[in-house]
Amino acid sequence: MTRKAAIIGGGVIGGGWAARFLLNGWDVGVFDPDPQAERKIAAVMANARLALPALSDVPMPPEGKLTFHGTIGEAVEGAEYVQESVSERIELKHKVYAQLQQSNPGVLIGSSTSGFKASDLQKGSPAPENIIVAHPFNPVYLLPLSEVSGSPKNTPETIAKTVQIMKDIGMFPLVIRHEIDAFIGNRFLEAVWREALWMLKDGIATTEEIDEAIRMGFGLRWGQMGLFETYRIAGGEAGMKHFMAQFGPALKWPWTKLMDVPEFNDELVELVSSQSDAQSGMYGIRELERIRDQNLVGFLRALKERNWGAGKVLREHDAARAALFHAATDTGPKSEPLVMAHMQVLPGWIDYNGHMTESRYYFANSETIDAFLRLIGAGMDYVAAGQSYYSAETHIRHLGEAKLGDRLTGTVQIISADEKRFRSFVRIQKGDEVVATIEQLCLHVNMAEGKTVAAAPEVWANLKAIAEAHAALPLPEGAGRAVGQKKG
Amino acid sequence: MTRKAAIIGGGVIGGGWAARFLLNGWDVGVFDPDPQAERKIAAVMANARLALPALSDVPMPPEGKLTFHGTIGEAVEGAEYVQESVSERIELKHKVYAQLQQSNPGVLIGSSTSGFKASDLQKGSPAPENIIVAHPFNPVYLLPLSEVSGSPKNTPETIAKTVQIMKDIGMFPLVIRHEIDAFIGNRFLEAVWREALWMLKDGIATTEEIDEAIRMGFGLRWGQMGLFETYRIAGGEAGMKHFMAQFGPALKWPWTKLMDVPEFNDELVELVSSQSDAQSGMYGIRELERIRDQNLVGFLRALKERNWGAGKVLREHDAARAALFHAATDTGPKSEPLVMAHMQVLPGWIDYNGHMTESRYYFANSETIDAFLRLIGAGMDYVAAGQSYYSAETHIRHLGEAKLGDRLTGTVQIISADEKRFRSFVRIQKGDEVVATIEQLCLHVNMAEGKTVAAAPEVWANLKAIAEAHAALPLPEGAGRAVGQKKG
Repeated sequence: MTRKAAIIGGGVIGGGWAARFLLNGWDVGVFDPDPQAERKIAAVMANARLALPALSDVPMPPEGKLTFHGTIGEAVEGAEYVQESVSERIELKHKVYAQLQQSNPGVLIGSSTSGFKASDLQKGSPAPENIIVAHPFNPVYLLPLSEVSGSPKNTPETIAKTVQIMKDIGMFPLVIRHEIDAFIGNRFLEAVWREALWMLKDGIATTEEIDEAIRMGFGLRWGQMGLFETYRIAGGEAGMKHFMAQFGPALKWPWTKLMDVPEFNDELVELVSSQSDAQSGMYGIRELERIRDQNLVGFLRALKERNWGAGKVLREHDAARAALFHAATDTGPKSEPLVMAHMQVLPGWIDYNGHMTESRYYFANSETIDAFLRLIGAGMDYVAAGQSYYSAETHIRHLGEAKLGDRLTGTVQIISADEKRFRSFVRIQKGDEVVATIEQLCLHVNMAEGKTVAAAPEVWANLKAIAEAHAALPLPEGAGRAVGQKKG
Repeated sequence: MTRKAAIIGGGVIGGGWAARFLLNGWDVGVFDPDPQAERKIAAVMANARLALPALSDVPMPPEGKLTFHGTIGEAVEGAEYVQESVSERIELKHKVYAQLQQSNPGVLIGSSTSGFKASDLQKGSPAPENIIVAHPFNPVYLLPLSEVSGSPKNTPETIAKTVQIMKDIGMFPLVIRHEIDAFIGNRFLEAVWREALWMLKDGIATTEEIDEAIRMGFGLRWGQMGLFETYRIAGGEAGMKHFMAQFGPALKWPWTKLMDVPEFNDELVELVSSQSDAQSGMYGIRELERIRDQNLVGFLRALKERNWGAGKVLREHDAARAALFHAATDTGPKSEPLVMAHMQVLPGWIDYNGHMTESRYYFANSETIDAFLRLIGAGMDYVAAGQSYYSAETHIRHLGEAKLGDRLTGTVQIISADEKRFRSFVRIQKGDEVVATIEQLCLHVNMAEGKTVAAAPEVWANLKAIAEAHAALPLPEGAGRAVGQKKG
């Protein structure tokens, strides 16, 4: 049965949660009295649809159903989880929880609060154990972190349930050991924010210079190792103690202005916002969001290739969904080309003509064939054990044009196969339009000997079943051609 | 003539600078009294050779010559620039500068100091204008940031020269407007470090939990946009002022402990290092370095594809080196295939078999044909004016294997050509071994009309001259084949 979450408060954060739940196949009921809420969530969803699926290597579940409701009671009906993202006013939050718990007693409520402790949130509730902090980072649909912070009133079961729901939607729940204001992430952000405001106020650096100082240097390090693992390396062979001995004394130096806070006044606001305009005003906010998302997709894909940090979370999420998918799918071969890959034309895929660059069509074929090889049991584990399919020869027809943002599918038709080889015909399609076809001969190779050999029996059995089913299909138009050959 | 830099102090930072200069074609003379210096720099170079070339899409220059010297005077002989990375003791730095300026008066000296101001460094020097801060971030061979900070004694010419040298080795020089201790980056690092030590000491979080809180959330954001551009987005349509209004008041909240610093004692050191061992002790430092480098290469390649942030720096560095390379290359039609491209198999080009991934052979063809199109006058300006060659059909034979680090050349033979099209035969070679051939039919297209039309007369004249010269060549073996066709 489809699971349901209620989203109370549909701003950037609430919308981001809605997107994450919907794209992971949950139904979502939204309550937000703002008449713009529907438009705002649609904008977040449009961004999320371009980004989150690009991180997945298994089929995404069908998108859940999004509904908007006039009351909190309707929104929470049938929901097993609520994410509350209303403004940071404690009395408003208490009011929302009272209505939620009245309409759906026992529902688990996670709050997106940036600073309130769970024990603050729970005050006055008849069921405080069901209210907990689940604090995300923007964009919620891409960044995996959710800081899960409870009070002594939360039971271990509530915490475990929250952790499981976060995992189910692909997040990384970090359970905070002790209740503190602002949890972990925001305390660092606040420290850096204060230091940055001092630098601006003192005319040391502009907003742009500060951003460059971060993203050209340590910001790149932090996205993959954080603070301590980075410093561990800085300590070299001598390790963390050496690092501490070297840099510990800096605590006594007057490097930072952190002992004091700058006065927050109109002048400071004007300084920051005018510099920010000069730095980023050439891009609209939506444009910046899309640039940010594509950058994050790039980082996350890089980490996923390396099975590291946030990339490990993505792999684990894929594995969990693949298991569900395989359990639910009839994988028996049919007499139709197999849809093996879903791709999107990313900014790095286009050439100076604005079209998908030609080698990317071959890349799209590789993605499709790689998925096919996984399907027949010749994936990475098989390769690691010493055998693999190598491509010997390829013929590509460029029939149409794919452009930035286009969604492509890759289908495989097996033209012929035996124990030692197969000939595949891949169609790269934009909707129903075939933009390229790739015909390829792949040989099954023992890698150590560098020789063509028969595939493992289970691989050949899988391939054979598909080849036999595909034998009923007509030979594709364009198969068997040489370059420049006349049609017919 | 090959340029030369002197490296004084060959630890992790000095070694990183040496690697960056060497891989960018500079000769490097090192002075470091540590008997381990040669071994340490060799280890850094081994890492750097695996990583920095993976960011380049133009041929790297031949690696410079690395020499070790027994005195500062010998190391700095013939150098136009010195990077000083000795320990943070001001009297030691002063002694080093005195010897450098005595042996090579007028040489420009950049210091890697983490905290000293240029005016501190310049004290007592006969030529203070030639001493400046150029503060990098580890790993120096990958992270582009160099904080360039001078005192009023530095001339605009000195600063400009430092900036230019940083750019020549692919860095992003950030000129700091006013002298301050610790420049910009380290002030933020210090703020976060203090906050992190409090959290550990108070038992709020472990080193691992703190690292996860960073790398699963805001760390990913900071690697591509930094602080202010990220917050600009958080302000939504209402922009930066809205963000300030929303979060400014937090300055008054007791979220952080920054008003005080934890006592730095053995207990704190033990706490941090034992937690760090539990978190990362399963990896050796060299292993962590390689993991970090591969992650950073992934991030930087993602940004380069998107021409954003640090990726923009990489593209500009490529363009500058490509211009030098093209200026040095000879062109003119002869009866032999034209050598159009020099490439190297980079880490991002290999698949899980350890071989060059198949679509990269097509990419190598594209690089070769793009260079050929520039040669006949159909480069980017021609495309911008509305006409271009589009590939219609391609046949690829995979004949050999290219592996990581192999240097490849792409040659073009024109099989036939008329005003509207040409058929090319590209050989991708590793030395004399042909690892792939790519036969391709390209059509000359008016892009607005989407129609095949005749090329501009000057383009056709260039192409015709080459096609006529190539008519004397035999039809290549393998031309005109269909996939799986029998030989003969």
